[in-house]
Amino acid sequence: MSLTSASPLEAAKAAKQASHVLATLPVSARNDALTAVHAALAAAKDEILSANARDLEAARLAAEHGELSQSLVSRLDLGKKGKWEDMLKGILDVRDLEDPVGKITLRTKLDDGLELTRVTCPIGVLLIIFEARPEVIANIASLAVKSGNAAILKGGKESTESFIAISKVISAALAATDVPNGAIQLVTTRDVIPQLLDLDQYIDLVIPRGSNELVRYIKSSTKIPVLGHADGLCSIFLEQSADPQMAADVIVDSKTSYPAACNSLETLLVQEAALDALLPPVAQALIAKGVVLRCDSRVKAALAGRLSPELAAKLENASDADFDTEFLSLTLAVKAVSNIHEAIGHINTHGSKHTDAILTQSSELAELFMSSVDAAGVYWNASTRFADGMRYGFGTEVGISTNKIHSRGPVGLEGLMIYKYQIRGQGHVTAVYGEGEGKKRFKHEKLAL
Amino acid sequence: MSLTSASPLEAAKAAKQASHVLATLPVSARNDALTAVHAALAAAKDEILSANARDLEAARLAAEHGELSQSLVSRLDLGKKGKWEDMLKGILDVRDLEDPVGKITLRTKLDDGLELTRVTCPIGVLLIIFEARPEVIANIASLAVKSGNAAILKGGKESTESFIAISKVISAALAATDVPNGAIQLVTTRDVIPQLLDLDQYIDLVIPRGSNELVRYIKSSTKIPVLGHADGLCSIFLEQSADPQMAADVIVDSKTSYPAACNSLETLLVQEAALDALLPPVAQALIAKGVVLRCDSRVKAALAGRLSPELAAKLENASDADFDTEFLSLTLAVKAVSNIHEAIGHINTHGSKHTDAILTQSSELAELFMSSVDAAGVYWNASTRFADGMRYGFGTEVGISTNKIHSRGPVGLEGLMIYKYQIRGQGHVTAVYGEGEGKKRFKHEKLAL
Repeated sequence: MSLTSASPLEAAKAAKQASHVLATLPVSARNDALTAVHAALAAAKDEILSANARDLEAARLAAEHGELSQSLVSRLDLGKKGKWEDMLKGILDVRDLEDPVGKITLRTKLDDGLELTRVTCPIGVLLIIFEARPEVIANIASLAVKSGNAAILKGGKESTESFIAISKVISAALAATDVPNGAIQLVTTRDVIPQLLDLDQYIDLVIPRGSNELVRYIKSSTKIPVLGHADGLCSIFLEQSADPQMAADVIVDSKTSYPAACNSLETLLVQEAALDALLPPVAQALIAKGVVLRCDSRVKAALAGRLSPELAAKLENASDADFDTEFLSLTLAVKAVSNIHEAIGHINTHGSKHTDAILTQSSELAELFMSSVDAAGVYWNASTRFADGMRYGFGTEVGISTNKIHSRGPVGLEGLMIYKYQIRGQGHVTAVYGEGEGKKRFKHEKLAL
Repeated sequence: MSLTSASPLEAAKAAKQASHVLATLPVSARNDALTAVHAALAAAKDEILSANARDLEAARLAAEHGELSQSLVSRLDLGKKGKWEDMLKGILDVRDLEDPVGKITLRTKLDDGLELTRVTCPIGVLLIIFEARPEVIANIASLAVKSGNAAILKGGKESTESFIAISKVISAALAATDVPNGAIQLVTTRDVIPQLLDLDQYIDLVIPRGSNELVRYIKSSTKIPVLGHADGLCSIFLEQSADPQMAADVIVDSKTSYPAACNSLETLLVQEAALDALLPPVAQALIAKGVVLRCDSRVKAALAGRLSPELAAKLENASDADFDTEFLSLTLAVKAVSNIHEAIGHINTHGSKHTDAILTQSSELAELFMSSVDAAGVYWNASTRFADGMRYGFGTEVGISTNKIHSRGPVGLEGLMIYKYQIRGQGHVTAVYGEGEGKKRFKHEKLAL
């Protein structure tokens, strides 16, 4: 890793050049590099944690003056229980994943002595733009090295001291390995994001990790493909046959286990026939957890008669805008729908294509919901909060994508790969093949992988 | 198919709605629709060919006045030998391909009763912008229906009469099938491309089929992902150990079998050690086919002494710009390089990541070249012109992509698919899982597909 104060253009050019070497390194060299990075970070714990303490101190001061949120300060803290250990363990976890480079995904015999092979390869140069969390730098650097991609890292200013300390250590560790200089670069100069986003000639993919505002700004400011999601407006459709206890458990988990997460529940759609019997205990469980229910008129009328006056008084009226809002807090919009078709239509219109669930006992309705809802995750009787690379068993994730192409949902190493087609021939030319008389035909025989 | 003079916004909204239904149709319904389209077009041959004759007549007139190129006029002609039959056969070929929808590509047992499945699904709404060739409309409509994607088609004005005739027939045929209205729409109103390119809320992917200028304009004018290639600057590296006859055959085929194609050769890189013995017969074969060689000084000096004065007089001097030029004609830029590393470096800097080849007897050098060159196609001892969906055995292609994400090289049905993650649970919640005491662990068992 270079700690660069070079211009964004120089950094991107160097990363591109390094990417061509990195792409050809055997997995042993990439894994050895990760082992070296892990050892070096473990040895430099004190020095990194004191750099982090300086960031924290500055952030706490800024928070006292109302310039930073308390949650951001908390995300900065590398000394928090288990965080340092998780960061180090993450590097070895990534190292121990299956090599994603050079996997053969198609082999066809085009003709005698002429073979087509499709083989996975790194995308090239990634630009990762992230906000506070300092541990992300080790995480992302590991994923980049493992997948054979060069990476340019641009972190938020609140964790500059931590970033510099970590990247100095990673840089020194990588210098003694086969990973070329320039393959992992931390850009520390300020205000360079617009310049980086302009370098589509050198940068192949941008991955923003941060607030909706950051992601939206990046998506609208570059021709480079962006992998990620701006919004996470997840919905659950509560169908009349759902088990009441199960419904309450799943909805409470989806809404309250981490309300600020992108995979948390924001809109609850309730089948009309479920308003009277099924919804009230669910609403009670949510209110008991501190959730504020913003209800449409039918929902409010149904609940008002069935909750205690004390609870009923807590119900709020939903506006139309509430069904297009990602609250990221303990507020939930609740709407009545007449049937599953209306629920699907609502989700496909107002959702963010992140993760949506149906709660029902009918497998037929569940399958209809899962094939009709256009989202990265479609669940049956499970919490929306399962949308996560670790929970899916991907080892780690670069983020969650709501894109409609390339990679969707939690993105692990696979999402950092593309492929190339190789042909091995013996001097074959195209002019001899065709449909006419005297022309050769292709064999197109599928070969084993 | 609707023949719409509706606004681009209305067309896109309708396509989005239709896409949600189309995505849930079983393969039998999608195949039946293609059978119906095929029969209807076959029955309407006379009426379509006379519409095409009107386009042709107008185009010939425009060509006489120098307003259209002769090659464009030729591409318009649906009556040309075999073209009509190929168009019809193409529809049945696509129908008979394996269903790309609903393929399970990953299954994981997350925990007892909690299963994760990754299943392929259509991307959603495609916008296809194409220039003259009227047969493309049938081709693309078939691919869209088969893959479960809605499509908005916008054709070039030169083939308007043909497009309208074909789309009226397809429209009537589809109306009697399960494919929803609005799933395939031909936009015939003029000057709507900028408006369509702005509708990223409804359109998921743009596929331009046409000139470099069209593709470049589209790539720089939309936030919607664009699948395709602007340039096809293909290179061959002639290594000293290559068989002379093989080298001449492959290079002549790559350059001359269809010089205007994107997969044709534009730059020949010759190892210095191959200049004296290997290059001259290759150059002779090229010149005999009418190829103009633009040589750097070392190449020119080597050839000048070894070709007849008559042939040597035909050699031209290459400028730096020639090595960044897609000639699309019988001009070839030729450059000496000292070794394979310089060749790889040149291609990774000046190429367009489309298709590049090495001619050599060394498998070691071939593998180095194929892993180091960053292109959709990397070939060993085979013509660059094999880069084609039909030749790869994909049945048909929507185009060739030089993108670094999603789909690369010839793009068939697979490139029109994405996936979604499904979870089937029994009321599972996330809060009970974790590393701490009393927490459950995920099982993450790989299941058979």
